[in-house]
Amino acid sequence: MSDIIIAVDAMGGDNAPFEIVKGCVFAVGEHKNIKIILIGREKEVQDELDKYSQDKSRIEIVNADEVIATEESPTAAIKNKKNSSMVIGLNLVKEGKAAAFISAGNTGALLTGAVTIIKRIKGVERPALGTLMPMENGKSSLLIDAGANVDAKPSFLVQFAKMGSVYMENVMGVKNPKVGLINIGAEKEKGNTLTKETYELLEEADINFVGNIEARDLFLGKVDVMVCDAFVGNVVLKFAEGFVGSILRIVKRELLSSFLSKVGALLSSGSFKRLKKYFDYSKVGGAPFIGLSGLVVKAHGNSEEKDIVGAINQCIKFIESDITNKIQEKI
Amino acid sequence: MSDIIIAVDAMGGDNAPFEIVKGCVFAVGEHKNIKIILIGREKEVQDELDKYSQDKSRIEIVNADEVIATEESPTAAIKNKKNSSMVIGLNLVKEGKAAAFISAGNTGALLTGAVTIIKRIKGVERPALGTLMPMENGKSSLLIDAGANVDAKPSFLVQFAKMGSVYMENVMGVKNPKVGLINIGAEKEKGNTLTKETYELLEEADINFVGNIEARDLFLGKVDVMVCDAFVGNVVLKFAEGFVGSILRIVKRELLSSFLSKVGALLSSGSFKRLKKYFDYSKVGGAPFIGLSGLVVKAHGNSEEKDIVGAINQCIKFIESDITNKIQEKI
Repeated sequence: MSDIIIAVDAMGGDNAPFEIVKGCVFAVGEHKNIKIILIGREKEVQDELDKYSQDKSRIEIVNADEVIATEESPTAAIKNKKNSSMVIGLNLVKEGKAAAFISAGNTGALLTGAVTIIKRIKGVERPALGTLMPMENGKSSLLIDAGANVDAKPSFLVQFAKMGSVYMENVMGVKNPKVGLINIGAEKEKGNTLTKETYELLEEADINFVGNIEARDLFLGKVDVMVCDAFVGNVVLKFAEGFVGSILRIVKRELLSSFLSKVGALLSSGSFKRLKKYFDYSKVGGAPFIGLSGLVVKAHGNSEEKDIVGAINQCIKFIESDITNKIQEKI
Repeated sequence: MSDIIIAVDAMGGDNAPFEIVKGCVFAVGEHKNIKIILIGREKEVQDELDKYSQDKSRIEIVNADEVIATEESPTAAIKNKKNSSMVIGLNLVKEGKAAAFISAGNTGALLTGAVTIIKRIKGVERPALGTLMPMENGKSSLLIDAGANVDAKPSFLVQFAKMGSVYMENVMGVKNPKVGLINIGAEKEKGNTLTKETYELLEEADINFVGNIEARDLFLGKVDVMVCDAFVGNVVLKFAEGFVGSILRIVKRELLSSFLSKVGALLSSGSFKRLKKYFDYSKVGGAPFIGLSGLVVKAHGNSEEKDIVGAINQCIKFIESDITNKIQEKI
């Protein structure tokens, strides 16, 4: 099998290029069958690479003079910055020169660029952002759509359910994955117009649809694929992220409010560090745009080295599982 | 000032009539200016009342032969069960025989009944369910709509913002309450069709609109009124409820995973109990339907004595602050 070539946006995210380059150096050390193309301002990227004594023969730099900033308008940025690391990276995938593109930069621009530069899989109405969330029981479930389509139609959601099933089965190895529709009640009749119409269609679809999943059960791991529009998905994801921080701060404050508790908290401080890591699920290897004919993965804006390695690992799994063709068959 | 008369559904919720009746007995002990009308099967309610030696002269029983169950279809239940405790209670408010009605029963039926039996405040398009959520900083913020209108229009959300402002100012004593629109980004341009259109209208409205509030900040107490449609509101509320349980279970599991941590956890077990209480905000005194010309409060389905007392306290504040007339002025 020939090497897998992965393009990485060296300039995207809060910690670029430092942590991005570092992650790539470690990833080529771990995987002997990959090559990395780092895209960014050549001198800056080379300076970072020079810091490492490891073998870098499988890392190539492609120069990009421009960078798309986080606050830029997605459509204008993609249209006007043809020499940005993001546009160049997406074109590498389009032209077949790379099997995947990873960026921790502007999410909206990455989505807009991915849809306009790389074609959708034939039959897919809208690509969706899929994010793996760790569950209380230790499993991971896929939240789809986590950020692409804020105004969705029932037919979009049905495709998200199908694409999510293919993902969980082929990339995560879950047999006959359970699909749940995020809703405000367990019964079929519950919900808004979107979810009620979607429910009917999901019952007919060729997937293992198990019904509605209420928001209070989202973290229990009862289903493998959690389907929703991107407004709800983003609210769930961001709320969880912020809420975990608040709860851990309150737990700490409470634990430190009496002497005995203070002793207790000191004794358990190692556990707290592990906990924080456990909940840091914004970072589980990045989120792929599912439904494109090429692989584009969004890494979290504050990605560090380990997150880039995680995203690269996910790309490898994706490519090896031939997910694009399998989605094509399902749709 | 004459006594405030509050009607209470003795048959609604998981712990009826036991905890409901108990809460009413304690409430009349605390407040010398209230009378309670308990509605339910007369013998059952009287048997419960007989368990207490306290003064019950300000508690009256009104018989209701029927009970609306949790799983019943709201519209059918309200239409067909004219002798249910819920329909009788709503009629007492409509006829001016009670200043408020509290029920821990079927939420959908209570909403349907409230809208059909008690009129809306003139000019109000849709009443909304308002829930106080405790924030990390110790304040409480109002989530509106927490459960009434799952398919909302921008004009509804603007009214929710206004009604929520009146509520926080008059019932909670917050001067010039800050109103935030729950959205998936901080900038005006972010969001779905509903939130983008609503943002424009909120900018023009006579309230202290401070812009979008992202889901990750919902628990920080940055705003006093958090506006959204009931689908999003319900997802946020239920997700928080379930998530807290998951996190506390994981914290415990982690704390118990090593010997030192185990000692720590034992020392801090009192703090854990306080924590659990802190987050039990599904129960903060019940949620009023805001925008009706009479006061209807939904208590949580698993309400206990203290929750009924909390709901009664809230009713008293509501009535004393003359909220209905103040909303009428604002709309």
